[in-house]
Amino acid sequence: MKVGVIGAGSIGLLFASYISKVFDVTIYSRTKDQAYQINENGILMRKKAVVKQSSVKALPISAWKGTEDFTIVTVKQYQLSAVLEVIKHLSILPNNLLFLQNGMGHIKLLEEIKGINLFVGTVEHGALKENAFTVSHNGEGATNVALFKGDFSFLQSFATGVPSDFPIHVQEDYYSMLMNKLIVNAVINPLTSILHVKNGELIQNKYFFRVLTNLFDEISFILNLDHPEEHLRQVIEICKKTAENRSSMLKDIEANRLTEVDAILGFILEEANKQEKQAPLLENVYHFIKGKEPAKGGVL
Amino acid sequence: MKVGVIGAGSIGLLFASYISKVFDVTIYSRTKDQAYQINENGILMRKKAVVKQSSVKALPISAWKGTEDFTIVTVKQYQLSAVLEVIKHLSILPNNLLFLQNGMGHIKLLEEIKGINLFVGTVEHGALKENAFTVSHNGEGATNVALFKGDFSFLQSFATGVPSDFPIHVQEDYYSMLMNKLIVNAVINPLTSILHVKNGELIQNKYFFRVLTNLFDEISFILNLDHPEEHLRQVIEICKKTAENRSSMLKDIEANRLTEVDAILGFILEEANKQEKQAPLLENVYHFIKGKEPAKGGVL
Repeated sequence: MKVGVIGAGSIGLLFASYISKVFDVTIYSRTKDQAYQINENGILMRKKAVVKQSSVKALPISAWKGTEDFTIVTVKQYQLSAVLEVIKHLSILPNNLLFLQNGMGHIKLLEEIKGINLFVGTVEHGALKENAFTVSHNGEGATNVALFKGDFSFLQSFATGVPSDFPIHVQEDYYSMLMNKLIVNAVINPLTSILHVKNGELIQNKYFFRVLTNLFDEISFILNLDHPEEHLRQVIEICKKTAENRSSMLKDIEANRLTEVDAILGFILEEANKQEKQAPLLENVYHFIKGKEPAKGGVL
Repeated sequence: MKVGVIGAGSIGLLFASYISKVFDVTIYSRTKDQAYQINENGILMRKKAVVKQSSVKALPISAWKGTEDFTIVTVKQYQLSAVLEVIKHLSILPNNLLFLQNGMGHIKLLEEIKGINLFVGTVEHGALKENAFTVSHNGEGATNVALFKGDFSFLQSFATGVPSDFPIHVQEDYYSMLMNKLIVNAVINPLTSILHVKNGELIQNKYFFRVLTNLFDEISFILNLDHPEEHLRQVIEICKKTAENRSSMLKDIEANRLTEVDAILGFILEEANKQEKQAPLLENVYHFIKGKEPAKGGVL
């Protein structure tokens, strides 16, 4: 199977490295320079003390023709519009597209794509891009995928074909799959980013834990969760399991990059708005993060 | 007039330095060592490039007899209980006591003191303790004082006696004087501490400004302010004037010290509780700060 990977950030490099063992992979990067470096060096993937080199073909995104059998879009949610523009101008539409963005912000955008098989997924791996062609895999996890619309079969054969040390689980219901991840991200990412703490501190510090539960309660009320206690248990479980990790949003803030706050909190705030529900904490947390992102506007 | 200054932190050293030009001042420090150092070196007060030395008598707090004509209590609110214990055990009660704590938390404690003249004040100076006997006066302001209970006259003669470069204004109503300062502190101190920003950024960053106004609205509702727009204007004015300053609470957090959050936000949260009003933002901000204070407790 020919597989295209769009985006050569940490998740793009990680996926390309693992699945290139079994599939014929081409990775598409934003810049020509990065494609050149990947072609020169291969992709280096570091896991603890071991470094593996994979030989993967790389091209700049402008060279993407959409001719692979299966394509994985790994760019951040806020870069997705640009990718969708490219898709619209391809002469041949790609057949099978898997989108791995956080949050729910991309769902609206995907509804505009017609006539091809669309899949969505959530990634639970910890990965850090070290340079243009090196990624460290510092948190083992799994990938969940589900059908968004169209035909199921290519997703199934992709998921069963991947190596066993990089598991991909097919889920029945894309909405609850994305929602589970969204709730976890909506609580852990913004709070760790505001407080500049590792995930574990949110449950080890009793005051931070109060904030966590208050924020969770607000989210649970807005999303009309049927079993909030299970979701809260999941949030706590992930704080425990990833206690020593810095969340992706915290890393973005520390590196003075844009964050995924609009994709993650923006969706829940819109829901609150539609249902005419108050969301004081969520709004507050949202503004804290927006104010810390690189583009700031003056008011007075 | 003999004046006692209780507490040799930044405000204690600043007051002792200025008023020792006109009054006979004894400063009381928590430790013997600091008293020794002040007696050896005098108090050095740095203002821009100029350093002034004042010769001030210093004693440890255990040697305080309460015999001065006028005593200024400059310790932090959370150290006040200890000072009040000392007062209760003095054989002669001091005649005139001025309390310079932030917030409203000390008012309840002062109601227990009987039979002497009690005054309260708010300090608008910026001061930083550099070492045991050196303070830098890096923000010129004024001190406001008012009668809390008892006789007015000593406060008046103290206020008119101070040097003109260290003005002390007598106010009619202690409650509105403390409340004005409280509102400013309740907005600026916690937000700058959570965000790790200078005061000015709260109004220069449009997202932080949204948080500021949301928090202000909640406080205004809880405190039943008659003219909220005037208080908000004052908050903005102070952010502008002190744009380059780091708030005292931010400095406390950065130095891993206790903060005055209980004296400042605790009072407003109690008010909310009494009136059965919701205070989601205030609670949230309170927990953020409590979680950043040195003593942290685990929950899970």
